[in-house]
Amino acid sequence: MTGFTLTLTTALSLLGLVIAFFYMKKVTGVPLDLGLEEKDASRLRFIHGAIAKGAMAFLKAEYRVLFVFMVAFAIFIGLVINYNVYDASHTEVTGKVMGWYTAVAFLFGALISVASGYIGMKVATAGNARTTVSAKADIGSAYKVAINSGAVMGFALVGLATLGLVLIYLFMSWALADIGQHNNHVLMEVIAGFGLGGSTIALFARVGGGIFTKAADVGADLVGKVEQGIPEDDPRNPAVIADNVGDNVGDVAGMGADLFGSCAESTCAAMVISAIAFAGDPNALLYPILISAVGIPVSLITKLLVGVKTEDDVAPALMKLLIISSVLMAVIMYPLTKMLIPDTFVILEGGDSYSNMGVYWCFLSGLIAGLAVGLLTGYYTSENYAPVKEVAKSTETGVATNIIYGLALGYKSTVLPYLCIAVSIFVSWQLAGMYGVAIASLGMLGTLVIALMIDAYGPVADNAGGIAEMVGLESEVRRRTDILDSAGNTTAAIGKGFAIGAAILTSLALFAAFLTASNAMLISKGLPEVSVNLLDPLVYTSLFIGAVLPFLFTAMTMKSVGKAAFDMIEEVRRQFRDIPGIMEGTGEPDYAQCVDISTKAALREMIAPGILIMATPLVAGWLFGVSAVAGILAGSLVAGGVLAISSSNSGGAWDNAKKFIEAGNHGGKGSEEHKAAVVGDTVGDPLKDTSGPSLNILIKLSAILSLVFAPFFVEYGGVLLKYLG
Amino acid sequence: MTGFTLTLTTALSLLGLVIAFFYMKKVTGVPLDLGLEEKDASRLRFIHGAIAKGAMAFLKAEYRVLFVFMVAFAIFIGLVINYNVYDASHTEVTGKVMGWYTAVAFLFGALISVASGYIGMKVATAGNARTTVSAKADIGSAYKVAINSGAVMGFALVGLATLGLVLIYLFMSWALADIGQHNNHVLMEVIAGFGLGGSTIALFARVGGGIFTKAADVGADLVGKVEQGIPEDDPRNPAVIADNVGDNVGDVAGMGADLFGSCAESTCAAMVISAIAFAGDPNALLYPILISAVGIPVSLITKLLVGVKTEDDVAPALMKLLIISSVLMAVIMYPLTKMLIPDTFVILEGGDSYSNMGVYWCFLSGLIAGLAVGLLTGYYTSENYAPVKEVAKSTETGVATNIIYGLALGYKSTVLPYLCIAVSIFVSWQLAGMYGVAIASLGMLGTLVIALMIDAYGPVADNAGGIAEMVGLESEVRRRTDILDSAGNTTAAIGKGFAIGAAILTSLALFAAFLTASNAMLISKGLPEVSVNLLDPLVYTSLFIGAVLPFLFTAMTMKSVGKAAFDMIEEVRRQFRDIPGIMEGTGEPDYAQCVDISTKAALREMIAPGILIMATPLVAGWLFGVSAVAGILAGSLVAGGVLAISSSNSGGAWDNAKKFIEAGNHGGKGSEEHKAAVVGDTVGDPLKDTSGPSLNILIKLSAILSLVFAPFFVEYGGVLLKYLG
Repeated sequence: MTGFTLTLTTALSLLGLVIAFFYMKKVTGVPLDLGLEEKDASRLRFIHGAIAKGAMAFLKAEYRVLFVFMVAFAIFIGLVINYNVYDASHTEVTGKVMGWYTAVAFLFGALISVASGYIGMKVATAGNARTTVSAKADIGSAYKVAINSGAVMGFALVGLATLGLVLIYLFMSWALADIGQHNNHVLMEVIAGFGLGGSTIALFARVGGGIFTKAADVGADLVGKVEQGIPEDDPRNPAVIADNVGDNVGDVAGMGADLFGSCAESTCAAMVISAIAFAGDPNALLYPILISAVGIPVSLITKLLVGVKTEDDVAPALMKLLIISSVLMAVIMYPLTKMLIPDTFVILEGGDSYSNMGVYWCFLSGLIAGLAVGLLTGYYTSENYAPVKEVAKSTETGVATNIIYGLALGYKSTVLPYLCIAVSIFVSWQLAGMYGVAIASLGMLGTLVIALMIDAYGPVADNAGGIAEMVGLESEVRRRTDILDSAGNTTAAIGKGFAIGAAILTSLALFAAFLTASNAMLISKGLPEVSVNLLDPLVYTSLFIGAVLPFLFTAMTMKSVGKAAFDMIEEVRRQFRDIPGIMEGTGEPDYAQCVDISTKAALREMIAPGILIMATPLVAGWLFGVSAVAGILAGSLVAGGVLAISSSNSGGAWDNAKKFIEAGNHGGKGSEEHKAAVVGDTVGDPLKDTSGPSLNILIKLSAILSLVFAPFFVEYGGVLLKYLG
Repeated sequence: MTGFTLTLTTALSLLGLVIAFFYMKKVTGVPLDLGLEEKDASRLRFIHGAIAKGAMAFLKAEYRVLFVFMVAFAIFIGLVINYNVYDASHTEVTGKVMGWYTAVAFLFGALISVASGYIGMKVATAGNARTTVSAKADIGSAYKVAINSGAVMGFALVGLATLGLVLIYLFMSWALADIGQHNNHVLMEVIAGFGLGGSTIALFARVGGGIFTKAADVGADLVGKVEQGIPEDDPRNPAVIADNVGDNVGDVAGMGADLFGSCAESTCAAMVISAIAFAGDPNALLYPILISAVGIPVSLITKLLVGVKTEDDVAPALMKLLIISSVLMAVIMYPLTKMLIPDTFVILEGGDSYSNMGVYWCFLSGLIAGLAVGLLTGYYTSENYAPVKEVAKSTETGVATNIIYGLALGYKSTVLPYLCIAVSIFVSWQLAGMYGVAIASLGMLGTLVIALMIDAYGPVADNAGGIAEMVGLESEVRRRTDILDSAGNTTAAIGKGFAIGAAILTSLALFAAFLTASNAMLISKGLPEVSVNLLDPLVYTSLFIGAVLPFLFTAMTMKSVGKAAFDMIEEVRRQFRDIPGIMEGTGEPDYAQCVDISTKAALREMIAPGILIMATPLVAGWLFGVSAVAGILAGSLVAGGVLAISSSNSGGAWDNAKKFIEAGNHGGKGSEEHKAAVVGDTVGDPLKDTSGPSLNILIKLSAILSLVFAPFFVEYGGVLLKYLG
């Protein structure tokens, strides 16, 4: 029975890959020209190809930059991280572990993240046009193609993540044992590199993808819609392909990398602590990976249970996916937790004693809090409820009130999600210490497969509508894809809430893992534990520095979007000016050039915010030591979480207030109210699609970075303090 | 020599009152009809009277509401706060101090705050029209009237604050001694009630004043300027008087109460700690009050050194006031600190040993950090520098980019001020512990008289211009008052920076005082000290709750302004519709009705945010105890400070970007760029004049409230935790 968890997890992760492969076949099995006349079919093939090519071109360019950066950073990790393992007398070094192990884990995590993003992007760009053609038949088949595309992303990513974690665990156990190092704690420190690798990719994918998509969006809208007066998704608009590419780049690759990061990181956080608590019990030790793996069969069953026949089924179907999978997870994790986690256990000798029932409640509190945060996000950003209606109404007194009401909504909408998260933290911390918080964050990610499925479904449906428009198919097709798209928007908002909630819990768990790891190293050196007391000047001062980081980061990314959009606007204007016959439809716009502009701008602009996030904890730890890093992490977590929620919700509310007006309320399309709402939407775009989601990464990445570099801080950190006194 | 500090402080505070009285006479000595024809003179007297009457009507209405609230809250304090003083064995109660002493101090602090606001408002509304008529002669005399009006506010307020602190100290020493209670620590806890009283008045003055002024401003602008197309300050606009009243209500009474609160609170915070450190040394004990008192003669000398002859002198004169007084303070505090503070001292027996030179450096670090934060605020909000120019340029691509760039500027502008504050905190904490932080905050407030002088000068000059317009005086008068006004705007921005910086340091010092006081009480009961460790679930969870408070508070106040402005818009529209001949200038608008609308809306809307701030720490402490309160304070301090700085600076930048465009850049007045800039300015108004400054109060008030209620939390707090087990 000792290999039970390992065997089950491996089997389930392989199952996930098989399911993904199966759905991939189902998607690509739909012929691209299904039911189309030859003229339309060739046009569709062209557009479909342009989007797929553009998306791959961006990914390739991005990965080329990242390859250099990742290898350089891996070398840096290898050079600066060194563990000394001491004997019980704290004086004699009994073992030495080099950072090169961590560097390998880091690159492996990055590779898996890249692979997940690549697969998601491949299937999303394959599924979009196929959803369009299926929509010619009926809504049920269109829904099926779109949700199957999402399913590929969901199953592949979770399958890869869990398999990757198992593999890196097995490899590193073997490798470290090979050099005579049997310390589980060191093992987990090394494995944390895996999470860091995934998270670093996520950072650049989110920031770069967010900048790409918004630059293309703003460029297409401002020059095409406003200046030239042509409709959305009009094929005469040179930025239209870039805009569609952007949906995939931002929402599929970016969101996927983000959630892969959360999954890998919270698993690492849980395992760093479980390495201490369950050193001799591999079944309990690997329980954190199992949670995610169990989501695979649960999501498969859920998906098979939920089908769509009529148009009214679409929105409820997505909601059902979320609810049913949550309930199934809650049920199935009960016996597993009872079986795998000992009835009672302690994390540190002499510390509090916890129970397996407690661990289950931690899992459940995360699951419920995640649902609650998601639903609250939906409430604050859906035009069906009072908050967005109020924002829409505020356009009656002009742009300024619309902005003020939207900002106020975002600020206000942070309260209840924070309360839910706080309760979940408090409960799980009481029930199983920091291990409990890590389990709660895995509970929040328990429905990850479904969340990813719905998230990737969104841009596929969105693209499908764009393609219908560009090909010039009958309006019924567009109407059907619009139904799919609109249902996806609501659940996407819920998904965003999940992502933020999970990021906060993950980051807190990593924070604890970082301190646990640092203290273990300090104690083994015979040094006192690190102070994280609010009455310590270093801690409190660092709290201030940490709190300011998310604001600086948001300012940088917001302006990056502005600059990138400016480049795009120039290019689109140039094409309208220079290409003869473009407005008459006789001249072909240079779509690829726009994709290229967005790509270059995104890659250029993602550097500075990326460096800010990665360098701050490293420099702080090097100069001021572990306490300063702890303060910075806490400060940026609490301030960054609020800012992330408020940015996303303000943006979402403005977006849907605009849609509410376009549906014929407050004067409808073309009214002064509508113009005011469009401004609100434009202000919200970088907030909800670039800086808000990127803040998720900021709070997680700085935490896992600190965890990985804990040995460096302990060995070489605090030089300025030592120098001063 | 034992009474040296006491005598000197008392003498200086009385000197302050004498100086204030002297300047009051100088201001009121200027005849209201100086150099005017009878027609103009009677018109000016009417308008001047209407503003003064409106301001007083608001103050009276506000004070009536506050009277009821303050008395009720004083009774609450008296009922729930009880100290048991234990003997060395922690078991026998040797003394009992009732909260009624604190309640008396609370009401006394409130009374002084009200008096300061009243005096400031009286002289500001007396000085405005006199500045107008003096501007007919030359700029030098107009400047003199305006700055003298400000001087009354500055000297009176600091004089009253220091005298009040001395009086409450003497009275409470006597009263407590009378019941056989000689514990300095208890004495200081009681005196903290004085700070709480001042701060509670400040809360309502800031929030109420902020809502009043913006409702009137938006109402006047939107209906008058935009809908009816009449110029700013046109006497035909029914809201024009309310608008001018608002400047006094918000910037004179609100800002005055805010800074009085900071001064009283940071003095209390320093004295709570010095009560322990310097129990037997009254000279050192009262040193914190002396710092503020020394500002009185220093500011007098500075004011006498700086004069204005030509128009170009005005802006440099205000800056000189700030710089010279800072230098003088730095010089004079050196010997005083050496003399009054012992060469070496410890705060707690067995704790770190500090020196008087260290204390001086703490003072200096606060003074310098205050200047730096002020200048940085000026940099980010003045149209002479790159940031605002960039925001102005962003209007070329429309409203949305203007909003995005303004928000990004605000976010970015928080970094350097936070660094300055963090360095000041770190340095002073290292040099003299939490006492050092309190001294640093007093250092930042060292130039308080001058800061108040400049702050109150602003609305006087602004009103003077409005009066010139309304009376219809020659354009040369308006040009001169505009020069005074514009110089005031820049320094007002600097003053805002000071106010925020001082609030942050004060709040931190109060935080420390709160924990010091709580621990002293716990120890005397034989209980363990309170945990403020970031690895304590209660602390970390509370950090989240604290961080969300400023956002909720901002959302509430922003929407309050919206609602109040809506009432005003309705009323102004009604008057334009119903009063015959109003646009032709033959019908008299009903100014008083508009003042009344603003007053009612302000009083109605200030309740909910006020209760939020006051109730949160009380409820948290009652349910969860001292650790929870500590977490909430820390969270709301770090998040609230960033939000306060960014709100103020975004608003200031939009305002000045608009002025920059109005000066003829980017298309000038009436262009599309200008329209975009006007929207930005309107969005920024509630941020910079209502919610931003009110956040200052939030972070200070919640801290001093916790300090005052520390005995309650220790005796009766944490009921929910006890109930849960």
